[in-house]
Amino acid sequence: MTGPKASARALVIHAPRDLRLDAVAVAAPGPGEVAVRIAAGGICGSDLHYYHHGGFGTVRIREPMVLGHEIAGVIAAVGAGVDGLQPGDRVAINPSRPCGTCRYCREGSQAHCLDMRFYGSAMRFPHVQGGFREMLVCESGQALKIADAISLGEAAMCEPLAVCLHAVRRAGPLIGKRVLVTGCGPIGALCALAAHAAGAAEIVATDIAGATLDAVARLGVATTLNTGADPDALKPFEADKGAFDVMFEASGNMKALTGALAALRPKAVIVQVGTGGDFTLPISVLVAKELQLRGSFRFHEEFAMAVDMIGSRRIDVRPLISATLPMDRAAEAFDLASDRSKAMKVQIAFPA
Amino acid sequence: MTGPKASARALVIHAPRDLRLDAVAVAAPGPGEVAVRIAAGGICGSDLHYYHHGGFGTVRIREPMVLGHEIAGVIAAVGAGVDGLQPGDRVAINPSRPCGTCRYCREGSQAHCLDMRFYGSAMRFPHVQGGFREMLVCESGQALKIADAISLGEAAMCEPLAVCLHAVRRAGPLIGKRVLVTGCGPIGALCALAAHAAGAAEIVATDIAGATLDAVARLGVATTLNTGADPDALKPFEADKGAFDVMFEASGNMKALTGALAALRPKAVIVQVGTGGDFTLPISVLVAKELQLRGSFRFHEEFAMAVDMIGSRRIDVRPLISATLPMDRAAEAFDLASDRSKAMKVQIAFPA
Amino acid sequence: MTGPKASARALVIHAPRDLRLDAVAVAAPGPGEVAVRIAAGGICGSDLHYYHHGGFGTVRIREPMVLGHEIAGVIAAVGAGVDGLQPGDRVAINPSRPCGTCRYCREGSQAHCLDMRFYGSAMRFPHVQGGFREMLVCESGQALKIADAISLGEAAMCEPLAVCLHAVRRAGPLIGKRVLVTGCGPIGALCALAAHAAGAAEIVATDIAGATLDAVARLGVATTLNTGADPDALKPFEADKGAFDVMFEASGNMKALTGALAALRPKAVIVQVGTGGDFTLPISVLVAKELQLRGSFRFHEEFAMAVDMIGSRRIDVRPLISATLPMDRAAEAFDLASDRSKAMKVQIAFPA
Amino acid sequence: MTGPKASARALVIHAPRDLRLDAVAVAAPGPGEVAVRIAAGGICGSDLHYYHHGGFGTVRIREPMVLGHEIAGVIAAVGAGVDGLQPGDRVAINPSRPCGTCRYCREGSQAHCLDMRFYGSAMRFPHVQGGFREMLVCESGQALKIADAISLGEAAMCEPLAVCLHAVRRAGPLIGKRVLVTGCGPIGALCALAAHAAGAAEIVATDIAGATLDAVARLGVATTLNTGADPDALKPFEADKGAFDVMFEASGNMKALTGALAALRPKAVIVQVGTGGDFTLPISVLVAKELQLRGSFRFHEEFAMAVDMIGSRRIDVRPLISATLPMDRAAEAFDLASDRSKAMKVQIAFPA
Repeated sequence: MTGPKASARALVIHAPRDLRLDAVAVAAPGPGEVAVRIAAGGICGSDLHYYHHGGFGTVRIREPMVLGHEIAGVIAAVGAGVDGLQPGDRVAINPSRPCGTCRYCREGSQAHCLDMRFYGSAMRFPHVQGGFREMLVCESGQALKIADAISLGEAAMCEPLAVCLHAVRRAGPLIGKRVLVTGCGPIGALCALAAHAAGAAEIVATDIAGATLDAVARLGVATTLNTGADPDALKPFEADKGAFDVMFEASGNMKALTGALAALRPKAVIVQVGTGGDFTLPISVLVAKELQLRGSFRFHEEFAMAVDMIGSRRIDVRPLISATLPMDRAAEAFDLASDRSKAMKVQIAFPA
Repeated sequence: MTGPKASARALVIHAPRDLRLDAVAVAAPGPGEVAVRIAAGGICGSDLHYYHHGGFGTVRIREPMVLGHEIAGVIAAVGAGVDGLQPGDRVAINPSRPCGTCRYCREGSQAHCLDMRFYGSAMRFPHVQGGFREMLVCESGQALKIADAISLGEAAMCEPLAVCLHAVRRAGPLIGKRVLVTGCGPIGALCALAAHAAGAAEIVATDIAGATLDAVARLGVATTLNTGADPDALKPFEADKGAFDVMFEASGNMKALTGALAALRPKAVIVQVGTGGDFTLPISVLVAKELQLRGSFRFHEEFAMAVDMIGSRRIDVRPLISATLPMDRAAEAFDLASDRSKAMKVQIAFPA
Repeated sequence: MTGPKASARALVIHAPRDLRLDAVAVAAPGPGEVAVRIAAGGICGSDLHYYHHGGFGTVRIREPMVLGHEIAGVIAAVGAGVDGLQPGDRVAINPSRPCGTCRYCREGSQAHCLDMRFYGSAMRFPHVQGGFREMLVCESGQALKIADAISLGEAAMCEPLAVCLHAVRRAGPLIGKRVLVTGCGPIGALCALAAHAAGAAEIVATDIAGATLDAVARLGVATTLNTGADPDALKPFEADKGAFDVMFEASGNMKALTGALAALRPKAVIVQVGTGGDFTLPISVLVAKELQLRGSFRFHEEFAMAVDMIGSRRIDVRPLISATLPMDRAAEAFDLASDRSKAMKVQIAFPA
Repeated sequence: MTGPKASARALVIHAPRDLRLDAVAVAAPGPGEVAVRIAAGGICGSDLHYYHHGGFGTVRIREPMVLGHEIAGVIAAVGAGVDGLQPGDRVAINPSRPCGTCRYCREGSQAHCLDMRFYGSAMRFPHVQGGFREMLVCESGQALKIADAISLGEAAMCEPLAVCLHAVRRAGPLIGKRVLVTGCGPIGALCALAAHAAGAAEIVATDIAGATLDAVARLGVATTLNTGADPDALKPFEADKGAFDVMFEASGNMKALTGALAALRPKAVIVQVGTGGDFTLPISVLVAKELQLRGSFRFHEEFAMAVDMIGSRRIDVRPLISATLPMDRAAEAFDLASDRSKAMKVQIAFPA
């Protein structure tokens, strides 16, 4: 086939645990747009929240929504005025579409755009439809060519890696620093890889699940500690007011954060990447040690960095893709992705 | 008299609400030391915790301890090898004595010294005796000369101002920034003055006590809002994801922090100066707005800055000294300092 | 009259020292635009270069060009869709018009826009016509309302103050810092005022011209030193590897920079605001002291800050406006502005 | 043998090109000291300046001086009170001995110590004797254990690597950045390796000598360009105001710096590591592009980082050690080190 179809199948969430393979309309790419035949889509924690619970916090599905924002594929057609891309090009898709004109975009803080449209998100209504679909039409600037040697599954890891590269940049320089990563899911694992790429001298990663710890240990960039099996595992790092210069909190679990405070040096930076509900923190410790707790949210220029780093395998994400299931086994894929004892990143393969 | 006495009277806390005027021994100043006849001492929140409760958190009085660390006086005698100070010199006393050799001191992070001896603190045992006493012997480097036009009561404000100048420096550049201060006690008021001196374009200060708000309003550097009387007082600052670039949390009250999050811009810096117990925070908001919560603890080089800024009246602290009582009415002074409806900073005058 | 004229008089440079009062066409304001009756225009160093030499470096007048970019006036008419401005409003005009879409604009570095159109500049061809004219049509976003109590002459100082606020922000936090300003023309004087507003503890300003030093001394924020009369004037600041944390080089004169290096502390920041030709620097000194030489160019968000700071008189620019001449005595005004012994900022008054 | 000799042979410079193998006295290690049998010593550019010219700038040999500050060896004896080191331990020696008490040391800026004693330096008189000797007694804190797998020749590269890690830290975060290195001698090569370790996305290295370019190309971390053979080699990086975010100037050659300015992005950081004489710079370019020229001088905490990074071979310095000659062929070694067509780092092997 040489161009986009008039319709495509997509993975649409209708209600908690009601995930369907629906047909969605596909227009021809307009000026400045491209049509991309999606090949791979990674399941993210937010996808799982929609799948299991219909959302998180106040964000709830109020209409059927195509899931997915970790996607890659092959250009099927290009619209008028598109330079530098042509059918057949293999691309990672940036799911972030800031408006470009609000006060935050003008300041270079596109992640805080007042009119953000991010794929597969129910934060606004109508919801922004996602990328788990056979064919997607997007702006040409969202499609970044990926190196030939890289699989499209790897390319679909650019989005979560971009999240973690942003977290690393929020932390400041890491060269020669001692780093703690709490939470060894895909985001924690990618934070460890990104911190290593940024020159961290030592990385310690913790979790309470043995399987994820094993997966991170195999990456070869971090020492792993099971703080579930041994609540005192971080004790050796608590001498002289603490050892770690930087912490990436990737679990979204309050205890991961509070349990690590004694192991952080005065003035240490905690980058909170994982999100969650209410965290109860001993504020006197944060004050007395002058800790810095910094939220990290999504990414902007880091998407291109991720394409570059995955493209050169400076960061090799292949060990993190634990399973790939075809589109028509999507529910199985979502269930597998929910099982931390079996899965790191689970991806969906869309038909060629 | 021309030199230090062999004994001096001091305000000693023995148990909660058991504050006595005891005689303490005073040695002659050794090499590099000076004897200072203390003239003024400001009562700080930690003094009040010792007075009312015998301590705070795990820090408890385990032996009689002289209170006080906001002090100023006149040099009475100098030890061998002291340059630049002589009897009669009027000085503010820096109560902070880092060791100078631990890893944090060598990095220039003296406030995190592993062997800190800070006046009037029960954090270590034996406790470090404080400065509410007629005569104090200290290292000459702790005594900084204050300008002639400045009263010794003003000079005793150098310590809390140093705390706030440190908080301002933790915030990064303030020129042209919009600043929120929560908590209008002496520390909040000094944060407002320091933020103004650093060029903040707009300062809004909140509290739930009318008297402190009035006191801050009279400083002429901030708009004041009573968030007790009007819980929606910050609503006008919440449009477009928030207005304030920087927040100084000086109340130590969790609600002051959580109530302000919606009024903070994405990437805003919150400097936590006030200390307290556990704070329960909506971590998803901190993540999504990429807020930065930074503890601020004591000071180091900022003490000299405070001496300079009070000395030139670039920062005029006089309106904040709400009462001065003689040493023998110390308990009355402590009770007054505990009443936010009547007092801002209460100082004790020691006999000449 | 109630709206813009069809033509207006403007000060047009045709060749070195060939400055004419020509008629220029004035269109009605289009959508989103406003017509402004210009009241005051300040003469800048670049205007003087065009006037005396036809340009500077490779930037040369190749067609007649209206001069001027420090301007303020009164709204005469508003185009369709303009909110928040109406005829009669008194405004300062931001002469900077970045494209908003190039890679630098998208990063928030609008001063480095690849398609900048800055009033009264021959950097591109056709030249961008300037603001020394009776009537100007500009985008409504360029016109910022100024406080009632402020004269339009003061309002025309927003542009050079914005340059200096940007320089101050390039320097990092100034609270408690020791600052050196070299060059006491309008830019040096405004740097001193801006550094004072940002909390500098001490400011020393140098020049070789007594009249400008006197003018800066009268501002009351800096100590002044005549390094022409006394080449050793900075010697007292050279002990212990130097005293100044930050230097603003506002003279564009190499000797001002090289003569100050010994008085700068290790790691000091030099903000180079003044421009010039080739500077020959002892690179071994810059290396051994780890000095930081940072260029500072124009401004962006600082224009609004300048409107705010002049509007509140936090920075009072009135002492710097040394003369105001009517439009038809423009050549005289330019000659006066060129004489450092007589003039600080010279402004042109346009007819009401 | 079990302890230090009473005398040892050392490489002593007496006058330009008068390098002798003299006997120097060796004391037993005092309290807190260790005696180290030196095994390897790298020849640095400053050693070459002493050898060829008797010094550089105003720094001149005024008495015989042992050369050398890139040294490693084996502990021969330990003095009283030394913990953590014992005879037989293999160590890299930190040649930097800041006083620990001056104002810069107290701020954590030990490289700017007012009383620095750095091995093999004629900056002060009496000169500080260097480390090219069979046996050296130093403070135990100067001797850092190196991993077993690492040769003592590699260990002697810790000092120049520390210089380059410091330069990298002066640059700010490098993750995802485009980096230019000018000058491909040992310092330029180590800057490239350090920038790579810190996550630079792209590194381009230039020189005018083919042999050094080849050596750097073999490291596999940088693209190399011969700007001598092709003065326009950087042209492709000049589009849209320039490509490089960060530049490390490691040649000490003015033309390397001026020739690169057009290829630097606005706001780019230039870290000047190489030292030299006077550099004539187009200041208008530095201003208009807001470039930042930062000196980088020696190191402090980076020495331990270098021990760690060489120890783990995160940075593999072996390809840079181009020749090792025995002590009694020192003059030959110095001559070889001076020939950029033949040598990268030349080391001297001291007898076991």
